[in-house]
Amino acid sequence: MSPTVEMRAKETGRIEAFSDGVFAFAITLLVLYLKDPALSGGGSLLQGLVSQWPTFFAFVTSFMTILIMWVGHHEMFTYIVRADRQFMFLNGFLLFFVTLTPFTTSLVADHITSSDSGTAAVVYSGSFLLLATAWNLIWRYASGPHRLIAEHITAAQVKAFTRNFYVGPVFYTVALLVALVSGIASVVLILGVAVFYAVGTRSPR
Amino acid sequence: MSPTVEMRAKETGRIEAFSDGVFAFAITLLVLYLKDPALSGGGSLLQGLVSQWPTFFAFVTSFMTILIMWVGHHEMFTYIVRADRQFMFLNGFLLFFVTLTPFTTSLVADHITSSDSGTAAVVYSGSFLLLATAWNLIWRYASGPHRLIAEHITAAQVKAFTRNFYVGPVFYTVALLVALVSGIASVVLILGVAVFYAVGTRSPR
Amino acid sequence: MSPTVEMRAKETGRIEAFSDGVFAFAITLLVLYLKDPALSGGGSLLQGLVSQWPTFFAFVTSFMTILIMWVGHHEMFTYIVRADRQFMFLNGFLLFFVTLTPFTTSLVADHITSSDSGTAAVVYSGSFLLLATAWNLIWRYASGPHRLIAEHITAAQVKAFTRNFYVGPVFYTVALLVALVSGIASVVLILGVAVFYAVGTRSPR
Amino acid sequence: MSPTVEMRAKETGRIEAFSDGVFAFAITLLVLYLKDPALSGGGSLLQGLVSQWPTFFAFVTSFMTILIMWVGHHEMFTYIVRADRQFMFLNGFLLFFVTLTPFTTSLVADHITSSDSGTAAVVYSGSFLLLATAWNLIWRYASGPHRLIAEHITAAQVKAFTRNFYVGPVFYTVALLVALVSGIASVVLILGVAVFYAVGTRSPR
Repeated sequence: MSPTVEMRAKETGRIEAFSDGVFAFAITLLVLYLKDPALSGGGSLLQGLVSQWPTFFAFVTSFMTILIMWVGHHEMFTYIVRADRQFMFLNGFLLFFVTLTPFTTSLVADHITSSDSGTAAVVYSGSFLLLATAWNLIWRYASGPHRLIAEHITAAQVKAFTRNFYVGPVFYTVALLVALVSGIASVVLILGVAVFYAVGTRSPR
Repeated sequence: MSPTVEMRAKETGRIEAFSDGVFAFAITLLVLYLKDPALSGGGSLLQGLVSQWPTFFAFVTSFMTILIMWVGHHEMFTYIVRADRQFMFLNGFLLFFVTLTPFTTSLVADHITSSDSGTAAVVYSGSFLLLATAWNLIWRYASGPHRLIAEHITAAQVKAFTRNFYVGPVFYTVALLVALVSGIASVVLILGVAVFYAVGTRSPR
Repeated sequence: MSPTVEMRAKETGRIEAFSDGVFAFAITLLVLYLKDPALSGGGSLLQGLVSQWPTFFAFVTSFMTILIMWVGHHEMFTYIVRADRQFMFLNGFLLFFVTLTPFTTSLVADHITSSDSGTAAVVYSGSFLLLATAWNLIWRYASGPHRLIAEHITAAQVKAFTRNFYVGPVFYTVALLVALVSGIASVVLILGVAVFYAVGTRSPR
Repeated sequence: MSPTVEMRAKETGRIEAFSDGVFAFAITLLVLYLKDPALSGGGSLLQGLVSQWPTFFAFVTSFMTILIMWVGHHEMFTYIVRADRQFMFLNGFLLFFVTLTPFTTSLVADHITSSDSGTAAVVYSGSFLLLATAWNLIWRYASGPHRLIAEHITAAQVKAFTRNFYVGPVFYTVALLVALVSGIASVVLILGVAVFYAVGTRSPR
């Protein structure tokens, strides 16, 4: 192993470690919004849990979405071998929306069955749309000519990987438009995208 | 060290780092459910702490259970040297139930002495049963012929390690059935399994 | 790779890992202070979110500030290759103010439009001033003659990097003085510093 | 670098990563117990913050104590190069008391000026006494003949390092006894121990 490879590994290593921390922490914080139903009074524990279905629904959707984001982040860093300051701030922009997720999830959980369901779903899908936009910015920057990706990556590989990033903005824009009509349909769509990625895709290598 | 070994180490390295993050946060988040008893009024601090025994009992049980899960995860990755997308999602499925643990623990803590004790223990043991099932799915996938484990691992070693994964589903199924009769007996059983693993077993190597 | 390089990498590696953990958790914990506005009653969800602008404003300011701090920490460790106990405690002093940030942010979020706006902004900017002071202490210690930085770093490089650390104390002192007159102007200034760093600077290498 | 060294590094690497996560998370969670004083009504923000001094006092004491524990953990792993299952569970026993710290800190913060001050300080110092005991168990196990420490470590080095572990149990026992008389004196003593370690000691290497 040459010192150069070693240095580069260290260079991106801490960015991955910090990002892993934020992803892992955001995905685990989601659980804090699951509340013991008995604490809000009335009925048996079972009835309370059943009546909390919107919270579990939002929890599962956000968990799956952050998980596919993390998998994508992991895959992107199999291409990227260098980092600079701009890249770190673009990555920070992406992580900003990851840390927002527990909050937007709680809005969906609390309002999905109320008249504010649309507003909650607009904020939720809009936040994911901005997250998907951040993905495109970061990858466009990193994959620019001779910038941050490994020398041995071919133009065809870059092109194939770039195509992945078009899916997110399209689906989250649709989800945002659907939210104007039906909040719950919008969240179901977002869950569908995550399930599709998790179950329906195969590893590129 | 060949570049291949290095690449593989990086490949599984981030999965381990992300999982370590989730395990570490989930195990530390448990403490948030320990509340200052004086805040809910009445009696001395000592009386308050003593009357909170179900919370400490649930806390210790969940801490021990997540700890043995983490040790198992660590040991599994001494065999696994490659990763693909399916594997990452199966691992995510496992982590889902790990992040759920602080919530299911709070249900046990709040209800173990009430008439809802059974429901709380069913959710608690049921969540661990699904976690144990996830373990079996992930290991079955990884140890499939020429898939993700190291070349030098023999079939006998795989078989021996596979046997470990049968214990969880059996015990958590029993705990689930016991929960229908007595919530507290079910949690004691789950604690017993964790203590047995922590104190009674020796490292395989 | 010589064993010496390897050992040194390990020596600073865990300090970086622990610091990454603290930075990542502190930046993610900020989200807990974003509250569902409907829970505090009255009006639509949209009105509630809009009226919460001070919270989002404080959230973005603190997120950006912790992010530039983390980027600086990352860059500092491209120079530092050794560690001793004093260094670890100085680093701990720095992390102390990082962990304080979610609390000082909540003070700004809650009080920026009230008559206590000045007090909140003094605590907020004062905490960042102490953080910037900790940066100077840690770098002065580490870059002392033949102490913790790599042999191949020239005196000119050290001098250039040292200059970065003068900016923080100056701006946060100004922000502290401004806070005595206007709380909100002080926080705007702090946000401005972070945005300047994130958008206006280029990587030194 | 021989494959053996590499494997060993991996072997203890994940234990360190998981422990770093728990230490970093526990130290950051402390901040959640700092509350905006205005939310509990009455007076200016400044008066509220000043009247909260017991919370800040407990916060600083726990931060410093977890920090010195982490530094000690870091130093211990410069000796330890192997791990087995028993070691992982002993380490888990140690981490158990680390995760308890935010809770015991909140007891001190809430009660140090009340008549329950003694009980709070007994729980606080008792928890650190058990933590210090866990340190001794783990080091005694690891440094046993030809067990987990590096071959090149001499008996004299082991002996010198072992002496460090006697300090904790002695001081925390004294703090526990003092707590029976004065809660606040007990916490001051614990803070003193942490400050002494952080300021007064020099790195052994």
